[in-house]
Amino acid sequence: MMALAEELFPICRSITGDGARRTLEILQRFIPLQVYEVPSGTKVLDWTVPCEWNIRDAYIVRDDGTRVVDFSENNLHIVQYSRPIDVTMRLAELRPHLHSLPDQPDWIPYRTSYYAENWGFCLTQRQLSSLTDGSYRVVIDSDLGPGHLTYGELLIPGETNDTVLFSCHICHPSLANDNLSGIAVATMLARHIQTLRPRHSYRFLFIPGTIGSLTWLARNEDKVGQIVHGLVLSCLGDAGGMTYKQSRRGDASIDRIVAHVLRHDQVPHRVAPFVPYGYDERQYCSPGFNLPVGCLMRTPNGQYPEYHSSADNLSLLRPESLSHSLAVLRHIVEVIEGNHVYRSRNPKGEPQLGRRGLYATMGGQRTATYDQMALLWVLNLADGHHSLFAMAERAGVPFADIRAAADRLLAAELLEPTRSQTDEWA
Amino acid sequence: MMALAEELFPICRSITGDGARRTLEILQRFIPLQVYEVPSGTKVLDWTVPCEWNIRDAYIVRDDGTRVVDFSENNLHIVQYSRPIDVTMRLAELRPHLHSLPDQPDWIPYRTSYYAENWGFCLTQRQLSSLTDGSYRVVIDSDLGPGHLTYGELLIPGETNDTVLFSCHICHPSLANDNLSGIAVATMLARHIQTLRPRHSYRFLFIPGTIGSLTWLARNEDKVGQIVHGLVLSCLGDAGGMTYKQSRRGDASIDRIVAHVLRHDQVPHRVAPFVPYGYDERQYCSPGFNLPVGCLMRTPNGQYPEYHSSADNLSLLRPESLSHSLAVLRHIVEVIEGNHVYRSRNPKGEPQLGRRGLYATMGGQRTATYDQMALLWVLNLADGHHSLFAMAERAGVPFADIRAAADRLLAAELLEPTRSQTDEWA
Amino acid sequence: MMALAEELFPICRSITGDGARRTLEILQRFIPLQVYEVPSGTKVLDWTVPCEWNIRDAYIVRDDGTRVVDFSENNLHIVQYSRPIDVTMRLAELRPHLHSLPDQPDWIPYRTSYYAENWGFCLTQRQLSSLTDGSYRVVIDSDLGPGHLTYGELLIPGETNDTVLFSCHICHPSLANDNLSGIAVATMLARHIQTLRPRHSYRFLFIPGTIGSLTWLARNEDKVGQIVHGLVLSCLGDAGGMTYKQSRRGDASIDRIVAHVLRHDQVPHRVAPFVPYGYDERQYCSPGFNLPVGCLMRTPNGQYPEYHSSADNLSLLRPESLSHSLAVLRHIVEVIEGNHVYRSRNPKGEPQLGRRGLYATMGGQRTATYDQMALLWVLNLADGHHSLFAMAERAGVPFADIRAAADRLLAAELLEPTRSQTDEWA
Repeated sequence: MMALAEELFPICRSITGDGARRTLEILQRFIPLQVYEVPSGTKVLDWTVPCEWNIRDAYIVRDDGTRVVDFSENNLHIVQYSRPIDVTMRLAELRPHLHSLPDQPDWIPYRTSYYAENWGFCLTQRQLSSLTDGSYRVVIDSDLGPGHLTYGELLIPGETNDTVLFSCHICHPSLANDNLSGIAVATMLARHIQTLRPRHSYRFLFIPGTIGSLTWLARNEDKVGQIVHGLVLSCLGDAGGMTYKQSRRGDASIDRIVAHVLRHDQVPHRVAPFVPYGYDERQYCSPGFNLPVGCLMRTPNGQYPEYHSSADNLSLLRPESLSHSLAVLRHIVEVIEGNHVYRSRNPKGEPQLGRRGLYATMGGQRTATYDQMALLWVLNLADGHHSLFAMAERAGVPFADIRAAADRLLAAELLEPTRSQTDEWA
Repeated sequence: MMALAEELFPICRSITGDGARRTLEILQRFIPLQVYEVPSGTKVLDWTVPCEWNIRDAYIVRDDGTRVVDFSENNLHIVQYSRPIDVTMRLAELRPHLHSLPDQPDWIPYRTSYYAENWGFCLTQRQLSSLTDGSYRVVIDSDLGPGHLTYGELLIPGETNDTVLFSCHICHPSLANDNLSGIAVATMLARHIQTLRPRHSYRFLFIPGTIGSLTWLARNEDKVGQIVHGLVLSCLGDAGGMTYKQSRRGDASIDRIVAHVLRHDQVPHRVAPFVPYGYDERQYCSPGFNLPVGCLMRTPNGQYPEYHSSADNLSLLRPESLSHSLAVLRHIVEVIEGNHVYRSRNPKGEPQLGRRGLYATMGGQRTATYDQMALLWVLNLADGHHSLFAMAERAGVPFADIRAAADRLLAAELLEPTRSQTDEWA
Repeated sequence: MMALAEELFPICRSITGDGARRTLEILQRFIPLQVYEVPSGTKVLDWTVPCEWNIRDAYIVRDDGTRVVDFSENNLHIVQYSRPIDVTMRLAELRPHLHSLPDQPDWIPYRTSYYAENWGFCLTQRQLSSLTDGSYRVVIDSDLGPGHLTYGELLIPGETNDTVLFSCHICHPSLANDNLSGIAVATMLARHIQTLRPRHSYRFLFIPGTIGSLTWLARNEDKVGQIVHGLVLSCLGDAGGMTYKQSRRGDASIDRIVAHVLRHDQVPHRVAPFVPYGYDERQYCSPGFNLPVGCLMRTPNGQYPEYHSSADNLSLLRPESLSHSLAVLRHIVEVIEGNHVYRSRNPKGEPQLGRRGLYATMGGQRTATYDQMALLWVLNLADGHHSLFAMAERAGVPFADIRAAADRLLAAELLEPTRSQTDEWA
C-alpha cells in the first residue's frame, strides 16, 4: 500500500480534472474499477456539477526574475480551482491572494475555492515573510471550463443485493494521510473481497469529496435502499490509534460491528458520536438518506497538526498502520459475512456435549476452558432471537470465536438455521 | 427584586389572613393579579379550608413586668395559628409551649400548627436559657375563626391554551429566601412574559403552601389538563448554585428543558430526582394529577442552615442571585416559546450553503466555525422528528444558538414547518 | 446448620447411589421431603440417566503391603464413577489414573467421570511425589450398573400455583461449602416457609447436579411454567460477601429482588451477570426454558482456592455466614410474599395525614421523619402502576419499611388493593 500511495502522491488531484482520471487509471491496475464521467452543469440534488479544472503551471515572479512561489515544486502552492491569470501587481494587491500558516512557518496550507471563482497561492509563512515590496508577475496557467466530474466505482456482487458501501475521496492533491491512505486501503480491501464469494454485495466508491457523493447519490437513488452497512474511509495511515465515528443513527448494525471489532483489537481506539461535519458521511447521513454509514479513521480530520498542509506527506504514513487498518476492515467484513441466526436443536437443558466429543470427560475442574465457554454461550443464546454477533457482544468474546464454536455445533447437528429472521443483527 | 422583598419582609403572613392580603395588594402594583377569597370550611379534595388567623400582638411578661418574648420584635416569635390566650403560669407549665434551636443559640425557629389547635412561642436558645423560675403572663392577641383563604392568580393568555404554570407560596412570615425570593422572581418573570405575545398561556399562582395548591387544584380541575409544563419557585435568592428538582415523571419536557438551560449556564447546578416532600410540587405531582411540574431553587429547603429560622432574613438575599434566577427562568421561557419542529426542504444531501452566503467560500480550513456547525446540525436533524430542542440536546449546543441557526435557514427557505407534529418535544 | 453439615460431611455422595439416599433420609428428619427414584436408562431431554454407582472400598498398595492411597481416609481419593478394578501395574502405567494439585501439595482434588467409563485416584501432590517406581496393586471395590437416580423434592403449597423454586445439588462427596452449605440453608429456609401461610407455592429440589435438574425438568415440564422466581443455592457458608448471579434474562423480578435485598444489607455484595457455566441455573436458564432463576452464593464456584478439593471441608464453614445467608433468603421471601399493588383512595393531592394521626401536627421542621417519608412515597406512587417493591426501588428504602408504611395507610383506609393487575412487579 505504501508503493501505491507513493505512486499517487505526485499527481495534482482536484474534484474534477485529469488528476482524478490518472488516479483512477492507476487503481484500475489493481481492481476493475468502472469510471464514470458526469458533465459539468449536471444537477445533482441541490448542487450542480462544476466546471472542470486543470492546471499546467503557476508561479509568482519577482521583478528580478526569481520565482518566489512555484507550483511545479508542490501541488499545494495553488488554491484549487484558481482561474487563469497573468498579471503584474504590487505586493499589497497580491497579499489577499496569498495563504500561509503563521503557526507552522515551514508548511504550505491546502486551500480550495471550488464554488466561488477566485485565484490564490498557498505558501509557507517563511516565504511570505521574505516577500519585499515591489511588483510581482502572477501566472496561473489553468483551464476552468465545461468538462466532467470523474469518479470510480466497483461493485462486487454477492448472493444478495444487500450492499456494503465503502467510500473514499480522491480529490486531495499531494496529501498522504488525507486521503491516499484511504484510497490505498480501500483498494486492497476490494482486492481481498474479490477473492471471497460473499453473501453481501460490496460497492466501493472512489469519488471527489462532497460533490462526488452527492453525484453518486443523485444518480443511484434506486440503489441507496440496498445499502445495509457502510463506511467512509480516510486518514488510515498515521501512527495514531483507531477512531470510529458513528453513523447518524448511532445504533446501526455497523456502529455495533465496528465497536465490537475495535474492542477486541490490540490498538487503542475511540468511538465518537456522529457530527454533521467531516467527510462524505455528511451526505450519506443527511436526513433524506440517513444511511447506516460511519467513518473509520486513525487520527481524525483536523485533529493531527499536519492535516491539510504540506506536512501531510508520505513521511506521515506508516506501513504497519496501513496494514493494521486493512486488517481491522477485514475483520469487519468477517463479521458482516459470518453473522447468522441459529436455533439450538436441543433448547431444553444443555445437550450432552461429552458424548459428542465436545466436552472434557473428566469433571471437577476449577473452570471451563475458553473453547467450552464459547460452545456454552452459543447453545445458551441459540434461541432464534440472538444472532451470532449478538452472542459475541453479550459474551464479550471476539466474533471469530463464537463463529468457530457455532461451526463445531453445526457439525455436531446441535444447531440449525432459523427459517424466518426479521433482523439478523438482533 | 430586592426592594420588593424588603417591602414584603415585615408583613406577618400565614396561610390565611390579612398578611396574605397585604402581600397580594403590593404585588398588584406590578402585575394585574386576580385575588380570590375562599371561605373557611370549604372542602378542597381531602382537606378543608381552615379558619382564618390574624394576630395583633403576643408577648410573655415576667412577674417584674419585663417582656421576655415580644411578637412585635419578630413575626417568628409566635407559633403560627396560635389561639388567643391570656394566662399566667409557672415556667414549667409554659416550657412545652416554647420552641428554640439548641444548635443555633441566636436564631428564632419558625413553627406552625395550622391544623391542630395549639399555641406557642418561638425564641432563641439564649432567651430560653435566661428564663428563671417564676410565673409568667402569656398573652396572645389573635383571632382564629371563620374567614377566608386568600390567593392570587395571573393568567397571561397565549395563542393556545397549552399552559405553563409558575407557582410560589406566600404563607411564610418574615422569611426571605423561603420565599420572598420566589415571590419577587415570579412577579418579575410575569412582568416580562406580559411583554411577549406568547404561544403558550402562562398561569402564575401566589398561594399559601399545601392548602393553597390543594384549593386551586380543587377549584380548577377543568384547567389542570391544560398544564404542559410547570415550575414551583422557591429559595431563589441565596448565594448557592441552582438546584432543579425533577417532576415525578422525571422525563417530562420541563425536566429536559431545565436541565438543558442549567447545563449551558455558568453557575454550578444540580439536578435532583423527585421526592414526595418539599413544596407544592407534592400536590401537583400527586398520583391523581401527576403534572409535569418540577421545582427550581438555588439551595433547597432544609439544606441551608438558616432555613426556617430568623436567620433566613434579607441579609441572606443577593441581588445578583435574584437576577440570575430570573435570567434562568427567562431562558426556560425562551426554550418553551422558541421550540418548533421543522423539516429540511433539501433532505437529500446537504443543501449548498455556499451559494446562499451561509458557508465560507474558501475551503480547506481545519474545522468548521461554531455558527456553521449549528447550521449543519439543524439541517442534519431537520427530519420532522427532531424538535429544535432535541437538536440542541443532541448537538450539545445552547438552544438559543440552534434557534438562531434555524432562523437563518428559514430565511434562506431551507426549512419549513412540519404540518402535523405528534410531540413538539420529540 | 453447622450440625447438619457435620452430620452430612462423611457421607460419600455422588450423582446416584446410597450416599444420596442417606443424605435425603437425614434431611427428612427436618422437612417432609418426597424422595424419587428414576431408573438408569431413562431418557431425560438430550441425556440418559446413567448407571448407579456405589463404592465400598478403594486403595493402592505398594508391593511392601503399605496402602499409599486409601479411600477410607477421604471420600475424595476416588474419581467418582470409577469402575471396579483389581490389578497390579507399574507406576508408569498407573500414573495417568492419578490426579493431584501441583500448586496445593496437601490437598486432594475432586474429580469425576460420570459419563465416560474410567477409573482413577485423587491424591495429594505430596503423596504422588513420594511414589517410587515399582508395582502397585490397585483395588476399586465399586458397583457400576443399572439402578436409580435419587432426588428429593418438597412442595409447600400456597394460595396460588405461582411457584418459587429453590434448588441445590446434593451430589458432592465430603465438600462443605460446595455444597453442604446450600443443602443446610435450603433445609432451614424450607422449615421457615412451612411456618408461613404463603401466597406463593414453594418448591425445593435436592438433586444431583446437571443430571438431576435435567431429570426434574424432563419429568415436570407441565410445572415449569408455574415458576415465577427461582434461586439455585450453593457456597453459602464461607466467610466471603454475597454474590448474586443473575438469571439469563437479567431483568427478571428475582434479579431485581435479590439486588434490592443485598443493596440494603450490611454485608458487601456483588451482582454478576449470567454466564452459561456454574450450577443448575445452566439448565433452568437453557433457551427452551429460560426460567427466571438466578444463583445465590457467597464466594462463587471456582473463585475460592479450596474449591473442589479436600480443603473445602467443615473448617471453611462459618456458622454466622450460614445464618446470614439464611437471613438474606428470608428477606427475599418477605419481598416475594409482601409485594402488592395498591391504589391511593385519595390520589388527587396528598390526603391530610395529620388528622389521621399519621403526621406531626407541629410544622416547620427542617425535614420529614424517615417514617413520614415512607408514607409519602407510598401515597405518591400508589397509582395502581407501582408495586410496593417498585416503590422501594424508587425511594431507595428497604422493602420492609415501605410494606410497613403501606400497612399503616391500609389501616387508615387510604389505600385499596387494585382489582386487575397485569404485573405485580411493575
